[in-house]
Amino acid sequence: MSVVGIIMGSKSDWPTMEHAAIMLDKFGIAYETKVVSAHRTPQLLADYASSAAERGIKVIIAGAGGAAHLPGMAAAFTSLPVLGVPVKSKTLNGVDSLLSICQMPKGVAVGTLAIGDAGAANAGLLAAQILGCHQPEMFAKIEAFRKEQTETILANPNPAE
Amino acid sequence: MSVVGIIMGSKSDWPTMEHAAIMLDKFGIAYETKVVSAHRTPQLLADYASSAAERGIKVIIAGAGGAAHLPGMAAAFTSLPVLGVPVKSKTLNGVDSLLSICQMPKGVAVGTLAIGDAGAANAGLLAAQILGCHQPEMFAKIEAFRKEQTETILANPNPAE
Amino acid sequence: MSVVGIIMGSKSDWPTMEHAAIMLDKFGIAYETKVVSAHRTPQLLADYASSAAERGIKVIIAGAGGAAHLPGMAAAFTSLPVLGVPVKSKTLNGVDSLLSICQMPKGVAVGTLAIGDAGAANAGLLAAQILGCHQPEMFAKIEAFRKEQTETILANPNPAE
Amino acid sequence: MSVVGIIMGSKSDWPTMEHAAIMLDKFGIAYETKVVSAHRTPQLLADYASSAAERGIKVIIAGAGGAAHLPGMAAAFTSLPVLGVPVKSKTLNGVDSLLSICQMPKGVAVGTLAIGDAGAANAGLLAAQILGCHQPEMFAKIEAFRKEQTETILANPNPAE
Amino acid sequence: MSVVGIIMGSKSDWPTMEHAAIMLDKFGIAYETKVVSAHRTPQLLADYASSAAERGIKVIIAGAGGAAHLPGMAAAFTSLPVLGVPVKSKTLNGVDSLLSICQMPKGVAVGTLAIGDAGAANAGLLAAQILGCHQPEMFAKIEAFRKEQTETILANPNPAE
Amino acid sequence: MSVVGIIMGSKSDWPTMEHAAIMLDKFGIAYETKVVSAHRTPQLLADYASSAAERGIKVIIAGAGGAAHLPGMAAAFTSLPVLGVPVKSKTLNGVDSLLSICQMPKGVAVGTLAIGDAGAANAGLLAAQILGCHQPEMFAKIEAFRKEQTETILANPNPAE
Amino acid sequence: MSVVGIIMGSKSDWPTMEHAAIMLDKFGIAYETKVVSAHRTPQLLADYASSAAERGIKVIIAGAGGAAHLPGMAAAFTSLPVLGVPVKSKTLNGVDSLLSICQMPKGVAVGTLAIGDAGAANAGLLAAQILGCHQPEMFAKIEAFRKEQTETILANPNPAE
Amino acid sequence: MSVVGIIMGSKSDWPTMEHAAIMLDKFGIAYETKVVSAHRTPQLLADYASSAAERGIKVIIAGAGGAAHLPGMAAAFTSLPVLGVPVKSKTLNGVDSLLSICQMPKGVAVGTLAIGDAGAANAGLLAAQILGCHQPEMFAKIEAFRKEQTETILANPNPAE
Repeated sequence: MSVVGIIMGSKSDWPTMEHAAIMLDKFGIAYETKVVSAHRTPQLLADYASSAAERGIKVIIAGAGGAAHLPGMAAAFTSLPVLGVPVKSKTLNGVDSLLSICQMPKGVAVGTLAIGDAGAANAGLLAAQILGCHQPEMFAKIEAFRKEQTETILANPNPAE
Repeated sequence: MSVVGIIMGSKSDWPTMEHAAIMLDKFGIAYETKVVSAHRTPQLLADYASSAAERGIKVIIAGAGGAAHLPGMAAAFTSLPVLGVPVKSKTLNGVDSLLSICQMPKGVAVGTLAIGDAGAANAGLLAAQILGCHQPEMFAKIEAFRKEQTETILANPNPAE
Repeated sequence: MSVVGIIMGSKSDWPTMEHAAIMLDKFGIAYETKVVSAHRTPQLLADYASSAAERGIKVIIAGAGGAAHLPGMAAAFTSLPVLGVPVKSKTLNGVDSLLSICQMPKGVAVGTLAIGDAGAANAGLLAAQILGCHQPEMFAKIEAFRKEQTETILANPNPAE
Repeated sequence: MSVVGIIMGSKSDWPTMEHAAIMLDKFGIAYETKVVSAHRTPQLLADYASSAAERGIKVIIAGAGGAAHLPGMAAAFTSLPVLGVPVKSKTLNGVDSLLSICQMPKGVAVGTLAIGDAGAANAGLLAAQILGCHQPEMFAKIEAFRKEQTETILANPNPAE
Repeated sequence: MSVVGIIMGSKSDWPTMEHAAIMLDKFGIAYETKVVSAHRTPQLLADYASSAAERGIKVIIAGAGGAAHLPGMAAAFTSLPVLGVPVKSKTLNGVDSLLSICQMPKGVAVGTLAIGDAGAANAGLLAAQILGCHQPEMFAKIEAFRKEQTETILANPNPAE
Repeated sequence: MSVVGIIMGSKSDWPTMEHAAIMLDKFGIAYETKVVSAHRTPQLLADYASSAAERGIKVIIAGAGGAAHLPGMAAAFTSLPVLGVPVKSKTLNGVDSLLSICQMPKGVAVGTLAIGDAGAANAGLLAAQILGCHQPEMFAKIEAFRKEQTETILANPNPAE
Repeated sequence: MSVVGIIMGSKSDWPTMEHAAIMLDKFGIAYETKVVSAHRTPQLLADYASSAAERGIKVIIAGAGGAAHLPGMAAAFTSLPVLGVPVKSKTLNGVDSLLSICQMPKGVAVGTLAIGDAGAANAGLLAAQILGCHQPEMFAKIEAFRKEQTETILANPNPAE
Repeated sequence: MSVVGIIMGSKSDWPTMEHAAIMLDKFGIAYETKVVSAHRTPQLLADYASSAAERGIKVIIAGAGGAAHLPGMAAAFTSLPVLGVPVKSKTLNGVDSLLSICQMPKGVAVGTLAIGDAGAANAGLLAAQILGCHQPEMFAKIEAFRKEQTETILANPNPAE
């Protein structure tokens, strides 16, 4: 059963949001992926977000570009933690997406990650950490991931090689 | 019966959005005003916007600050024209509001006005113009308003007076 | 007879503004297109905008880049609703165009759309909505367009496919 | 025993970060607060973050302004979820804080909230949601909080009152 | 007979534009001042700018805030040099004014000065320099002004006094 | 004898600044071009600018990118009018150049043009206009140039052709 | 004999630049302060910077706002290390100053500090560090300053007190 | 023995940071290079920076992109002067890196250079100047470098060649 839901406003967001899925795969976390557009399928968004908890989802990851209302509107329809990924937009490089996702009003929160691929990967990681703070086994997996990451750098200290 | 609906995300937006109402009053246009929060009352927003046309509303004016999802989400639930007013936000002066309202994806449109009071007043004016392009009487009123506005400046050309 | 006028500051704006025309075609709305430069043909602009209403035009769509004075100056010469499209500029990605079009003073309004192709397409859509709020047949066409748009996404929910 | 740690770079950040504490109080969540400066007490930061999990902390909330390295560096020293609050800075209104907190590289994540008071309050809320996705009782409290928030608006729909 | 024309979009621009007048006074240059709004009195603008040369005007100084189309549109109607002053706007501090004035397309030029009072004063100075490059007496006055300005600083080198 | 001096901070600015030269050629205005770096040849800059007037130069056009101190420092050493062209910079697209050139303090002025090629061409045009406001023959040439420019657009009104 | 020279473009920069002096006082470093304007006293700047080394100056701290050419031009006239402090400007909050000081071309360097008071204080600190990397006694003073700074925070960990 | 340490957050920063090494080579300054990630190897960073002085390092050059905490955190662990190079980031062109490096709080300083290659080269140059202000031989080398740089431009004044 999926415990993380990855949604995005358009298929064109997948090359970015795929990095969230890849990260979750590393931790063996089950997830579902779906195109849900805040503007073009608002009822689907309402249904998806408001039913997520009872379907067993623990964390929602939402990626969108431009006006990027998806993460904030998903958060409006659920009490689960929602993580937002600003997808790099064509004209403004994702500054619009970042501000739209991050600047939520008091009372409905979105945890915003960096613009683009790194942000999507980190949304997967943060979702794992959210699961991990209650699941010792998952926490250990994250510690191992982080340790390996550190060691990879320590083993290759020469920038010019 | 109201033909324009003025909605805003919070009571604190009223000092800005009031300027839309004042402008509509000048043209004798009936309107309704309501606090509708995209994030805190998303179902109300869906109900309000999707029923607006059948209630006789012709144009929706939506004002919001910060993440400012209200105008775009109203547009997602109606086929009526939606005008968006970026309310000046506390931290970023409304740049976040402006980008979030304006940068809508293809297929769901919001006509965005300037940040703050001038934008709210112009949302009222543009709503009147939208009505006026089909109603000769309203069109004449706008022409008169514009002419008077021009004459006020022509009559007071001295900046230092 | 054309009911929408699409004007732009230069032929180089056409690849963007064409998306407004394509959208109007979808709704069977008659339109005219013309290069009108605020700075290089100011008299033409004055003539075009001030005569538009009596020629039967209901909505003007104006696209421009950089200083982008065209939409605001068209609005200065007509009481018809004017929609502005910020064309992506070479050096500043359209931020200059966006601010110049959107930040109009109280008393002369421009409904501003997103930067670039999506904004141009949405200008066409919003023009249709402006017509539609008075024409039940057009309103029905927009409802159908929006419904089809929704169904296209619902039918293809898998982002990775 | 505290389950949330609220840290901040300076005492001057408290008027902002206090809103995180107030929110946690609403949910009856135990927390600790501490001044920890990434630049002036880097060893304290390393000690605090790396020992947080074994001390029973589940979520770290870190607020900082300007260069705002605190949230990212806390995340570097722990596998717990870290939420970052950009404190409004004197010269750049928190844009510097926002970018510095949000634009983390792949492999170390910070969930970033809005600039200023609203962001701090939402950090408290998101921490509660992170706890709530594993604790049905806490989840119910959040649902109740959200419902009450909605009803408060529904009960006061008139913006001008 | 006035040789410099100072125009501005609104009386509220006078406290800024006054600094241009004060500077011209220092050089004994005759000037006229007038409120001319690009958007609310477009015909007046066309008339003013296109008749300026034959009325003996040598340089036009135009100040405006927000969308700030006045300088560019004045330049569109005259072959005289036009200097633009971005007036500090309420919401965006004059960034919108600056970009709108400065980012003119090839073929119609505006010499843009700094945002606000300093820019207005410098518009007066640059107008004097434009006159001075053909009038040895005026050139000598500018040299004297610059020399005096230098000497004032040299005479007061202690910042803490 | 050259009446306009075109200087630039580096040879790499020539593809941009060449457009100023091309424009001056259209009006038959004699000019000189030279690489003068504010930072790497500060004494040359001082010598060039302070001797320009006595060598017969009437207007200095200075182009630079990045920190772009050249136009402002040229203005510091001469009483001639100085026009500044922000060259599009590699990292910040010329926003840094624009602000550095435009935001001069009271007492030393630079007339700033648009970023990049259009700005360089317009610097040439504005220099011609500065000459033209005292030389009826040059003024007539500018009027003819502007008229031709207008007619070119009027003759090709179809954007899609 | 002074080993650090603190210069600034105007007396109005002193309330900011004073923080550099206060920091140097803490370390017992002799310094001189002077108003030197890049634009209004360019020859003084050239003389000051080019003679600084032979007068015994080791580090130059230059503060300026707006176009802020002072630090870069000082660097152009000396081989000593130059530290630049962006003074918070009236209209753009020091973003213009920051970019103008920081974005120097290859071959002439300025070490830029933060905008405003903190940046000025840190310019004093960095000057001390530059002296300290060759003077063990000064290095020890900096270590002591840093240790005391750390201890002050450790002794007051409660943000709400 | 190395007197300058060049560190960077990732191997991908080397093409930028290499320019610092090339510049140091010109002055015959011994240096070491190492990948040190503030977020992925925070303990290595602490060890590296806190032991640098006793290993004979005089200046640390740190380059990083995005959140770019490396320079500030290196400065937190040493009393040596630290120079920061904002590496051009993928999404925001290095604006995030620049602000994160430059906007340090009072008490811990980083001397920030320009974004990208020029900034890296200038970090090398400024490091040499820091050494040179105490070593007459190194100072003479810098004077020679600067003189040669000036002469190269003086010898090639024609931009179009």
